Amino acid sequence: MKPDYDVIVVGAGLAGLTAARQLERSNLRVLVIEARDRVGGRNEEVTLGNDLTLEVGGQWIGANQEKMFALCREFDLKLIPTYNEGDNLLYINGKCKRMGSQRGAIPKLNPFVLLDLYRSIKKIDKLSAQIDLTNPWQHPRAREWDGHTLESWIRQNISTHQAREYFRVVAEAVFATEASDFSFLHFLFYLKSGQDLETLISVEKGAQEYRVAGGTQQISRCLAGSLQTPVLLDSPVTALHQTDEGVTVQTAAQTFTARKVVVSLPPTLAGRLHYDPPLPALRDQLTQRVPAGSVIKVMAIYKEPFWRQAGLTGQAASFEGPVKITFDNSPEDSSYGVLLGFLEGADGRQAAEWTVDQRQQQVLACFARYFGKEALSPLDYLEKDWMAEPYTRGCYGGHFSPGVWTAYGPYLRQPCGHIHWAGAETADIWNGYMEGAVRSGERAAGEISISLKQTKA
Amino acid sequence: MKPDYDVIVVGAGLAGLTAARQLERSNLRVLVIEARDRVGGRNEEVTLGNDLTLEVGGQWIGANQEKMFALCREFDLKLIPTYNEGDNLLYINGKCKRMGSQRGAIPKLNPFVLLDLYRSIKKIDKLSAQIDLTNPWQHPRAREWDGHTLESWIRQNISTHQAREYFRVVAEAVFATEASDFSFLHFLFYLKSGQDLETLISVEKGAQEYRVAGGTQQISRCLAGSLQTPVLLDSPVTALHQTDEGVTVQTAAQTFTARKVVVSLPPTLAGRLHYDPPLPALRDQLTQRVPAGSVIKVMAIYKEPFWRQAGLTGQAASFEGPVKITFDNSPEDSSYGVLLGFLEGADGRQAAEWTVDQRQQQVLACFARYFGKEALSPLDYLEKDWMAEPYTRGCYGGHFSPGVWTAYGPYLRQPCGHIHWAGAETADIWNGYMEGAVRSGERAAGEISISLKQTKA
Repeated sequence: MKPDYDVIVVGAGLAGLTAARQLERSNLRVLVIEARDRVGGRNEEVTLGNDLTLEVGGQWIGANQEKMFALCREFDLKLIPTYNEGDNLLYINGKCKRMGSQRGAIPKLNPFVLLDLYRSIKKIDKLSAQIDLTNPWQHPRAREWDGHTLESWIRQNISTHQAREYFRVVAEAVFATEASDFSFLHFLFYLKSGQDLETLISVEKGAQEYRVAGGTQQISRCLAGSLQTPVLLDSPVTALHQTDEGVTVQTAAQTFTARKVVVSLPPTLAGRLHYDPPLPALRDQLTQRVPAGSVIKVMAIYKEPFWRQAGLTGQAASFEGPVKITFDNSPEDSSYGVLLGFLEGADGRQAAEWTVDQRQQQVLACFARYFGKEALSPLDYLEKDWMAEPYTRGCYGGHFSPGVWTAYGPYLRQPCGHIHWAGAETADIWNGYMEGAVRSGERAAGEISISLKQTKA
Repeated sequence: MKPDYDVIVVGAGLAGLTAARQLERSNLRVLVIEARDRVGGRNEEVTLGNDLTLEVGGQWIGANQEKMFALCREFDLKLIPTYNEGDNLLYINGKCKRMGSQRGAIPKLNPFVLLDLYRSIKKIDKLSAQIDLTNPWQHPRAREWDGHTLESWIRQNISTHQAREYFRVVAEAVFATEASDFSFLHFLFYLKSGQDLETLISVEKGAQEYRVAGGTQQISRCLAGSLQTPVLLDSPVTALHQTDEGVTVQTAAQTFTARKVVVSLPPTLAGRLHYDPPLPALRDQLTQRVPAGSVIKVMAIYKEPFWRQAGLTGQAASFEGPVKITFDNSPEDSSYGVLLGFLEGADGRQAAEWTVDQRQQQVLACFARYFGKEALSPLDYLEKDWMAEPYTRGCYGGHFSPGVWTAYGPYLRQPCGHIHWAGAETADIWNGYMEGAVRSGERAAGEISISLKQTKA
């Protein structure tokens, strides 16, 4: 019996849509099935009453993320440089210290802390550079590095309190989880995957360099719009039944057949589908071990970006929560001022238990601490708890607990019968980022094209 | 509309059946729903062609596991002391060293190693004794201990190579995972939960003291048989829909309603059900972070327990895998000799990739290394990979990755609306053991009885 489709793609985020596009270009009949009522996954725009469009999901591209730049060019999406004029703030011991906003700016810390910090960063970049991104578990010291957390490394290798705290804030900012929660090997892999630590945390020539005018979700909408492939929304996939010939994909209402399937969900969600026959033991145990981070993205909207007049970029890094990282997220025409903050890791989890009012109050208090009392009186307040989203269950992405890369690494991308795996967490380059999602979609599509050609031959 | 039942219990292992019994005794109408075609969960008997019944799941009770002793008395199940006469073996550097088999026997290691080992055990027992089992995250040093792995602690606190290896083997034997894979706080909690390290690893007055004649699955069968409550087999629950009034429980074929539900599945499986409305963010993030261990239980059946004549207990602990831990599992009448071994942690994962023949060959080679060439010629060979079981997905139980207890501990037992949580992983006393499972069932049933009484009043 002829299957309904050559390939079914589960998930209409960047990974899934990219895979669909590439497969369609190979003249395959493709269907994309999406749980939500929209495409875009972890990219999402919200338009407020005043016609102001803000992004509650992943929003930045930068550095050498060439796939993302190419997509923006293709769809004629304008890039807006992240506002970066003036000084950044570093909030320590109840005080704001100004520092430059250029890449590699030196925070105003005491010389011992600085020395400690730079030695550590140099050491980490040196270790990180040795990782083979495709097989991080094969480094001679992989088991050692995978045997402890970033927190253990911090305690053993960094001696000053402030340099330790700096690293912990970096961990929260990059992974939305605590330094105690993930493997040191994963940390090294992730830095190399996104070039290096400086690139991951920078605006200038870094991962936060540009926003996309109108929002990054547009990329998924443009991708979906450019497809001949149908994208079925509102249809959570519940089960995948495999035979030698192909896969039957089940949603609550419908059943479809295909020769191959791409599952582009984050590991923790991919592991929840019902697979018949059951997935191999080690693939299942992998998805038990790559939990999603903990973040609530918050924004306060003001009449104008008042901090700019004070010579501030709107970027603060703080040793005290709950909001430890902020950015200026104002629209390009500065018709409003928008402060963006992240409640990450332990702060995010704690804040998840508060009411919206409590969160707003706490968030504004942080904004005021960094940028003055004007921050207490916004026109509007917006937030998104990605942990509470049933079809995401945490952002920015999945992190590898200690021991996981070395024990289960090979199962991350290895297809299971006719099922192939995509998603930002499966990328070797720019793992966890939009760029990685796109690359993973291309890889999965490539695997399938080769496999189907071999079947024909 | 009156619901079909007062309480539906998901899962017919010891936790679920105990909950059902207690709820039924409170005159509540109960239904138990089980995915498998049998009761007993991680307890399972297999009867070989020669009428020999062997246990491929959890099999021992001992120490102060009073609930388990009481159940065996109630159902008139005979206890068989684990064979413990003669010497145990310690296999190091290619050689077998004999040591006593009594509790606390001193391994024959060099005095520096012994000193290192005893200092470490003393230190750990001292730290462990400070843990509050109900709230391990509240210890003043909880965040510190939860911030690193047992492996990190080993490297920082144990200086001799052999003492380090000893601890790693203990970690594998107790958790079926590597010392690198779980939080040091979890280690401390778990030891205290089962009394102390010595109790967990001992036969004499320890967790491996007795077997149950005929097998521990009988306890679940007796429990199920003693219930008026129906136990619906072959019915994997897929979804739970909650309203203010109660819960609708869905299986592939049927739908039932109840005022309350007990989910007695291990965390990693509980997290895979579809919940509507979705579970709170932090409950979901918890179940993303308590993966199951990795173990294949193997047995070789011989004409007789030949190692006994050599004055050996059949118990070996080895620094070299793949089988690092063995026991004499012969039937009480010694009509056959049965060597039992465990492929745990990294060894278990590696062995999961082998064929049955490859595993048998590797296992017998280990048995021969410890007990002589006779071990190479068994009458029969039996194995069970618990990672591959779709309704278990790993044994012995779930472990807490670093950072999880301190961030998510409170959500382990906290009911979500009308849904209550049971299972060995939710126990404060004997967490991860049959005793813990029974206790968790009693606790969940108690919560529901109180809650339903309050609703009435």
